[in-house]
Amino acid sequence: MHSIEFYRSEFISYLDSKLTAKEPVNLYEPINYILKLGGKRLRPTLVLLTAEIFETNYQKALDAALAVEVFHNFSLVHDDIMDAAPVRRGKATVHEKWDVNTGILSGDAMLIWAYQLFENYKTHIFRGLAELFSTTALQVCEGQQYDVDFETRDDVALSDYLKMIEYKTAVLVAAAMKMGAIVAEVSETSQQDMYNFGLNLGIAFQIQDDYLDAFGDPKTFGKQVGGDIIENKKTYLFIKAMESGSKTVKKELLDLYSIQPQEPEEKIEAVKTIFEESGASIAAQEAIKAYTEKAFVILESLELAQEKKDVLRKFGENLMRRTV
Amino acid sequence: MHSIEFYRSEFISYLDSKLTAKEPVNLYEPINYILKLGGKRLRPTLVLLTAEIFETNYQKALDAALAVEVFHNFSLVHDDIMDAAPVRRGKATVHEKWDVNTGILSGDAMLIWAYQLFENYKTHIFRGLAELFSTTALQVCEGQQYDVDFETRDDVALSDYLKMIEYKTAVLVAAAMKMGAIVAEVSETSQQDMYNFGLNLGIAFQIQDDYLDAFGDPKTFGKQVGGDIIENKKTYLFIKAMESGSKTVKKELLDLYSIQPQEPEEKIEAVKTIFEESGASIAAQEAIKAYTEKAFVILESLELAQEKKDVLRKFGENLMRRTV
Repeated sequence: MHSIEFYRSEFISYLDSKLTAKEPVNLYEPINYILKLGGKRLRPTLVLLTAEIFETNYQKALDAALAVEVFHNFSLVHDDIMDAAPVRRGKATVHEKWDVNTGILSGDAMLIWAYQLFENYKTHIFRGLAELFSTTALQVCEGQQYDVDFETRDDVALSDYLKMIEYKTAVLVAAAMKMGAIVAEVSETSQQDMYNFGLNLGIAFQIQDDYLDAFGDPKTFGKQVGGDIIENKKTYLFIKAMESGSKTVKKELLDLYSIQPQEPEEKIEAVKTIFEESGASIAAQEAIKAYTEKAFVILESLELAQEKKDVLRKFGENLMRRTV
Repeated sequence: MHSIEFYRSEFISYLDSKLTAKEPVNLYEPINYILKLGGKRLRPTLVLLTAEIFETNYQKALDAALAVEVFHNFSLVHDDIMDAAPVRRGKATVHEKWDVNTGILSGDAMLIWAYQLFENYKTHIFRGLAELFSTTALQVCEGQQYDVDFETRDDVALSDYLKMIEYKTAVLVAAAMKMGAIVAEVSETSQQDMYNFGLNLGIAFQIQDDYLDAFGDPKTFGKQVGGDIIENKKTYLFIKAMESGSKTVKKELLDLYSIQPQEPEEKIEAVKTIFEESGASIAAQEAIKAYTEKAFVILESLELAQEKKDVLRKFGENLMRRTV
């Protein structure tokens, strides 16, 4: 086993080697651009790591890892159009740097390219990867649709929200780990265990994303703290506060979520106070812990050498300790 | 062998059986809507027909046929956004009836669904279909990009144009026929022959589309005759006229293509006169004939019973005799 940083940097080298100039330029340049923007490379790293957990050289898993990262970036390009987001990782989004049409078409090509990357595997692995990928990709689309639907709904329950983040975020983390197991040709049971481990970790990861957006340290948090509050986003914190707060608190929160002041500081502070006093903040921290623990219980049940389990546990712990 | 109309109507029944209500409604309703809008169903019919040409029950080819039709409609949904087209087959386009975001996301889901339809085949057929599909889908994206690029280019050569229509239109017709052959599990050579037959027929079909848009009979042509001229579209006729016309004629044509009059009749007539006098009109007719003949030469070389060849020839002849 190598370090997480090793897998990450090996993945980045492989990715770079694949980003060559191709015709038509206006289709492929935006693809190279978004894939070079950086990011944690969390999902492809997990593919490589999981393959090695099951005694398979990570190099065999590079194409599956690339497929996952290409798909993730496809979803960012199309989501950024839908959110009219001008900035991604500190740089202009594809539809901002080029235009919406370019974003749509380059995204489409990325989705197809992701499938093509499975062609480098033996037929039964190809099939396993492609089928898992299709199921996952469709769930991600459904999750994105639920997210869009929630914007105009006032009755989003916590269970709706959890299903949405499971589909929009967690299934891809889960699929990344299962892909490593598929490439390693381990049993269906082991594949499914890795999937479930990743799924719970992915849900914890997304709730933590919501938590950090409101309560992250401005010094270490990459984005503007309170961004979700400014945009009146229905996060775990908001939905939990609406579910558990008193009638007065609910009304106050809804009022705050109906305004978009030029200077948002006061609004952010008022909303954060509600998140804390309603118990939503503690509930979010408990949920993060609970999903992480659930992932670790699955991990301990696996038939793996303790050192392997320790690598995955450490990875999970680091992820939950992140401030970014 | 059954009639073309039989395959078409069997396909439509199968399609209808697959268009059920699914959650989230805002993702799946637009998919059902676009797939119910109708159309010639040319590509799926070709999949079924080709399977039966090779002695395989068309029912075995229904999922491959559906994948091709779903993909074709995916490309229509995304292309209509890019072209800001309000109407498709006499009805509102998806982004017009819903919104651009819905068009993007529902289109994405259709592309993934198309891949899933191959999962109903044995593994080696699954792989053959999925690989052909990826290659084809990426070419269609590249063709669409070339088409977009051509809008702002003044130096489009006939060879550029032919490559564009090959990618944007012909490869999917070719792939539809090859898919029928893959499902029938015939030799690689036979698969490739069907592909080449379809490719040439597809190119002829697209040049004819250009020709009918200018010279079709307003009584039978479904759309407004001269639509491409109104939109200053660089069609086969335009590019050929620019290549073969005199300096004066070229200047006249460029001038006409720089205006968008409220009453376009005069412009349409002037452009059509140039298409005729420059020889572009006759060249288009000759090109349609040449590509069709090339398809028929491939057809005659096949090791098939004459009656089977006759079915395909008749199909091609009818397609080229169409007025719609």
